[in-house]
Amino acid sequence: MQGFFHPRTASGRASLLPSPPWHYSGDLLTVEYRVNPDRVADLLPEPLTLAPEDPGAVAFIWADWQSCASDGEQLLDPVLGQYKEAFVVIRCAYQGVTYSRCAYIWVDTDFAIARGLHQGYPKKLGSIHMTRPHPYGPAPRVAPGGRFGASLAASDRRLAEARIRLVAPSKSNGFVNAHPMAHSRTVTAIDDPSRFRLDEIIVTGSASAEGGDPWSADVDHFALFESPTEELHLLQPEEMIGAYYRQVGVTWNGGKLLHDNLRGDLTAQAVHGG
Amino acid sequence: MQGFFHPRTASGRASLLPSPPWHYSGDLLTVEYRVNPDRVADLLPEPLTLAPEDPGAVAFIWADWQSCASDGEQLLDPVLGQYKEAFVVIRCAYQGVTYSRCAYIWVDTDFAIARGLHQGYPKKLGSIHMTRPHPYGPAPRVAPGGRFGASLAASDRRLAEARIRLVAPSKSNGFVNAHPMAHSRTVTAIDDPSRFRLDEIIVTGSASAEGGDPWSADVDHFALFESPTEELHLLQPEEMIGAYYRQVGVTWNGGKLLHDNLRGDLTAQAVHGG
Amino acid sequence: MQGFFHPRTASGRASLLPSPPWHYSGDLLTVEYRVNPDRVADLLPEPLTLAPEDPGAVAFIWADWQSCASDGEQLLDPVLGQYKEAFVVIRCAYQGVTYSRCAYIWVDTDFAIARGLHQGYPKKLGSIHMTRPHPYGPAPRVAPGGRFGASLAASDRRLAEARIRLVAPSKSNGFVNAHPMAHSRTVTAIDDPSRFRLDEIIVTGSASAEGGDPWSADVDHFALFESPTEELHLLQPEEMIGAYYRQVGVTWNGGKLLHDNLRGDLTAQAVHGG
Amino acid sequence: MQGFFHPRTASGRASLLPSPPWHYSGDLLTVEYRVNPDRVADLLPEPLTLAPEDPGAVAFIWADWQSCASDGEQLLDPVLGQYKEAFVVIRCAYQGVTYSRCAYIWVDTDFAIARGLHQGYPKKLGSIHMTRPHPYGPAPRVAPGGRFGASLAASDRRLAEARIRLVAPSKSNGFVNAHPMAHSRTVTAIDDPSRFRLDEIIVTGSASAEGGDPWSADVDHFALFESPTEELHLLQPEEMIGAYYRQVGVTWNGGKLLHDNLRGDLTAQAVHGG
Repeated sequence: MQGFFHPRTASGRASLLPSPPWHYSGDLLTVEYRVNPDRVADLLPEPLTLAPEDPGAVAFIWADWQSCASDGEQLLDPVLGQYKEAFVVIRCAYQGVTYSRCAYIWVDTDFAIARGLHQGYPKKLGSIHMTRPHPYGPAPRVAPGGRFGASLAASDRRLAEARIRLVAPSKSNGFVNAHPMAHSRTVTAIDDPSRFRLDEIIVTGSASAEGGDPWSADVDHFALFESPTEELHLLQPEEMIGAYYRQVGVTWNGGKLLHDNLRGDLTAQAVHGG
Repeated sequence: MQGFFHPRTASGRASLLPSPPWHYSGDLLTVEYRVNPDRVADLLPEPLTLAPEDPGAVAFIWADWQSCASDGEQLLDPVLGQYKEAFVVIRCAYQGVTYSRCAYIWVDTDFAIARGLHQGYPKKLGSIHMTRPHPYGPAPRVAPGGRFGASLAASDRRLAEARIRLVAPSKSNGFVNAHPMAHSRTVTAIDDPSRFRLDEIIVTGSASAEGGDPWSADVDHFALFESPTEELHLLQPEEMIGAYYRQVGVTWNGGKLLHDNLRGDLTAQAVHGG
Repeated sequence: MQGFFHPRTASGRASLLPSPPWHYSGDLLTVEYRVNPDRVADLLPEPLTLAPEDPGAVAFIWADWQSCASDGEQLLDPVLGQYKEAFVVIRCAYQGVTYSRCAYIWVDTDFAIARGLHQGYPKKLGSIHMTRPHPYGPAPRVAPGGRFGASLAASDRRLAEARIRLVAPSKSNGFVNAHPMAHSRTVTAIDDPSRFRLDEIIVTGSASAEGGDPWSADVDHFALFESPTEELHLLQPEEMIGAYYRQVGVTWNGGKLLHDNLRGDLTAQAVHGG
Repeated sequence: MQGFFHPRTASGRASLLPSPPWHYSGDLLTVEYRVNPDRVADLLPEPLTLAPEDPGAVAFIWADWQSCASDGEQLLDPVLGQYKEAFVVIRCAYQGVTYSRCAYIWVDTDFAIARGLHQGYPKKLGSIHMTRPHPYGPAPRVAPGGRFGASLAASDRRLAEARIRLVAPSKSNGFVNAHPMAHSRTVTAIDDPSRFRLDEIIVTGSASAEGGDPWSADVDHFALFESPTEELHLLQPEEMIGAYYRQVGVTWNGGKLLHDNLRGDLTAQAVHGG
């Protein structure tokens, strides 16, 4: 049976995903702020712990992507490769190393959901909108004073919105999403909802990346709204850190297993010859 | 960490899925036909084999669902519980028993995708439409001569369409989808696309069901269309069997592990004390 | 040039709408309540005035439709005929006669927008959901205690939601939407936004209708939400009247011109030989 | 009653459209080709006639827009201002002057439909996708060899697709869509489907425009597909002319009445003192 993802067939043509590497062009709008670190701890499964420095830092990020496999085919039939996403990144620590971790994420296509399942992103469907830079007319340039807005809705409810104003090129695009990602991948046993058949933490990140200067930005507006099926309202900012805007090109090509919760510490296994 | 599905949090409120049991009310439009059994074999991973009788039988099914957890909440905020699906069912054999198996399936919500991941349905997003019965006006009754149409599209391409005409109440709603489902659940290793971290076959089906009489129907029209990312055109009918229509109420509440491809035959393990 | 609606061509095949009569099967969920009559007056153009009795009465209605032209074709390719809508009905008076009038309406297809342009409904696109009755499983029956929910969103914001509980068959399906509709049709001059090229009031209603008993219902929940591009929050209930549920079949086949704002009172024209 | 478009209210806040001028930033992908001029004539209502030169020329154009009113608000809540469209432009003549004319057009938002009603574009809803230029990663630059794809679907059927490859900056962005637009605006009488209450031809175009160099492009692929509710298959290319790509900023601010079919030739009226 062929195919990187389901449905698998003799030819593999119907697979929802082509094999990695996956290549992306996109724009990132980031708002960073702080919450009570207890709210971050609420989102960390064992054995992950709070990051030692600035443990309550959160990044809310909107991204507008064009993506493709190595043959680039999805760029030219763009219903197969374009998508937008909005996501919340926190940080955590494992064995003394600090990682980024996506706590919540919404995307607007099925192939993006499927990639997230492989990469450990807890994706739901949402409706995501972002101002795009443009060289002509009323849309903003990537330049001082450029104003960009973004919104997220899911299940017919608006969940988040932001408006930023570019200030100047910046050395950083923020620090919360700057580490390798430590993500959970779990599968619940079909015969016992209390038991996992797979429960692992993987580490993943870009295989390569390029991009323009990040821009620092002022936050003109940032709002999170309550929904009966979401918990974003528990992550209301207590203190704003700042905002960033950046255009990037990224390649993703797998990761490594960091921890197997069903079998214990992989390092320990190695030490003991497991 | 609480929550039946991702994202998991301290409270579990953000989980994309409530815990089973899941309850459904819905309408099923089924078209059964035969293809060359080789085309069915193309869709069966080892150790599944062709069903011993009528191995080329296929069911193409459209369903229009209202679903909910035990508290019924999703019925009353129906963006959280209504969805439609179109799917292809084939049959297979494992250790001398015949099972049904979903080869392809499209749904129109994220919670339906997530349920499918748990249940082993290889779901993609699609746009699904079905005529609904209605007691007044031009829509059909569930009665002799009632005409029902259905269509499926994905990635902005029409993939399938059917039109049937009800004939009479029937003892059967078809035989292809009448067995317990033998479904695969797989997770590819994050560090090696050629290796599975989980590769199991589960068996699942309704915990309970009720419903009206199935209706037999004539097939006025059935068409499958080619798409660069699908393989439905390989399942063009060689011989029509018939069509069915039924309204049902169903409860789903888990299943059993049938085969672990990474560890081998579970029965053998049991025999040998594994 | 042929075709009931644009785009018009030599054959008329591409017309967004087939010619009337249009036939509908559908379910109606109605919540009636009162606001300050000034809020209704805010929605009435001259020469329409407040209804003499109960002038602040409002009906908020959700409807789930299957629609078709005379050949029924759209029933069987249901992407062409099914749609949902949510709308606000008020009442008004013209020359001593009381009319119903749709003040706001959202639908989820383009053909429904186009029909609304012909019929004078001020349609926007929205996302509308309604619980559907079903004979099996957890969805409600049309029976005492049956619980139905409904929601409306537009531009990624939830605008309205309701939950009702059926009590008993009723003689009435409400009174606010029970009159012929007096609707405006306007076209603004292309060279002067302050001037209309067409500004008329038409009267329209069902050419024929059938249906089951209306059901009276208790209102468990009704909420209107604010949006920067809507005014529903100005129609918050001051006093609830009641709720209703009904399944109907309806035919629409045109209406009559009631008033031409550019040429004055049609009756007067007739009197004076116009 | 305030508001540029329906629904009109005391405040005008709920209007689906803000008042012009409307400002746009966007990208245009144009494929030009020739058909039998009879197929163009099939799309021209009296008194419009075929353009005297190259009467069978057709432009199929995809556009990806960000739009706003004078306060720019829709740029920053982009669900209110972004949309995509695909449209067919032909040419025609009226009183010795050549005009462009949109024969078919699909957009993906309601505000774009509403603008089209004012501007005389015969809009339907569709799903439109276009490759976007990007400075990083796999997406194309606006540079020699840059490959852009585009697709259109409506009613769950793919209607058109194109793939072009940029060659060099060009003096022209094509000639078919280069004239002022002569568009029809019609309203059918509510009491007589065979009679118009308004039937006029307006002329409209950009109030101002800026933009980068157009690029000429090779057409790697162009396909039109049949649909039971469309006529694009009648406009299959007999001869390709070329393709173009351009990024622009445009302002639209009204037009002029060219011809009133109910009252006859406006010029003649003027001559005769009408």
